[in-house]
Amino acid sequence: MNQQYPSVLLERAVNEFAKLPGVGQKTAMRLVLHLLRQETDAVERFGQSIMTLKHDVKYCRVCHNISDTDVCSICANSLRDASLVCVVENIQDVMAIENTGQYRGVYHVLGGVVSPMDGVGPSDLHIDSLVERVKSGGIKEIVLALSSTMEGDTTSFYIFRKLSGTNVKISIIARGVAQNDELQYTDEVTLGRSIVNRIPFTGKF
Amino acid sequence: MNQQYPSVLLERAVNEFAKLPGVGQKTAMRLVLHLLRQETDAVERFGQSIMTLKHDVKYCRVCHNISDTDVCSICANSLRDASLVCVVENIQDVMAIENTGQYRGVYHVLGGVVSPMDGVGPSDLHIDSLVERVKSGGIKEIVLALSSTMEGDTTSFYIFRKLSGTNVKISIIARGVAQNDELQYTDEVTLGRSIVNRIPFTGKF
Repeated sequence: MNQQYPSVLLERAVNEFAKLPGVGQKTAMRLVLHLLRQETDAVERFGQSIMTLKHDVKYCRVCHNISDTDVCSICANSLRDASLVCVVENIQDVMAIENTGQYRGVYHVLGGVVSPMDGVGPSDLHIDSLVERVKSGGIKEIVLALSSTMEGDTTSFYIFRKLSGTNVKISIIARGVAQNDELQYTDEVTLGRSIVNRIPFTGKF
Repeated sequence: MNQQYPSVLLERAVNEFAKLPGVGQKTAMRLVLHLLRQETDAVERFGQSIMTLKHDVKYCRVCHNISDTDVCSICANSLRDASLVCVVENIQDVMAIENTGQYRGVYHVLGGVVSPMDGVGPSDLHIDSLVERVKSGGIKEIVLALSSTMEGDTTSFYIFRKLSGTNVKISIIARGVAQNDELQYTDEVTLGRSIVNRIPFTGKF
């Protein structure tokens, strides 16, 4: 249905919002009318925050994480273990791991995973710079923390092969039964793997 | 969970997006990262479209519909029947009725419905200006096209009372079984009303 907008300015703003992923024409209209009901100051802040972000945001030249500075706050933190590098797909993954409070190493953000279906090859990712990082020394262990999907596994294997000449230790995050999962509903691959990769029990979870 | 953002600029943009209705922190993050992946030009267009809209948009001084001009294109259109005024809640309703192609009159946008629960009283709506419009002459019929809810009905009744002194004809849009609805699943109020308000059948739907 071709909507007839009463205002060209409105139509333009709605069309811009409708370009966002998961936002259709009706939702876009609702969001724009919501913004119109706000104070001018608030709307200016909204528009400005987007333009400033795009303009001024930096990517850490060491780990490619998003950053306000040349080197991100994690890489620049001398309390973090720079010899331990966790390889992740994107910055949301960095935030998710940081939120666990269980990791004191640094990161390397690939910017995606190898996915021939989406036209993403290894050269589109920050894999070469990971190899450079390893070769320049100081790194003892690489932790592969990619999604447990075919694309994630392909990427992990590609990196494993790329680093096989170096004497860095390569590990991968544990796969198994998730917290609060019931065994009878866990898929057989996961369950099988969790038995094969069982660990010594110390009485603590 | 208190997220730790790797960049203040990112955090600010995400928080702005998360203020939109129905957009949580995770969705906001996804939208902002999507924008970051776009060309600078596209992001500028997005931000600018919002600020321009807020800055330059007008509301028709006759019907209060959103407009690029002082009087909207519907009110300014001499082919429309200015003696027939359809009263609606908001501009989406104007667009919905326009999309039917069945209405050749003009509109009056209230900007909401009376809703004591939300603190919206008659004085918060464009009801006085509707009464003015009617009193200034030239209007033969008012069509009440508000939602079939308690708030909509209350508002319709309030307007009906306000206009009872004038000799304008007041009608209300038909309520009944919707297209493609099966009778057995239609609620009894709707079904009962559709029988009481039956119309002569001419062989055409």
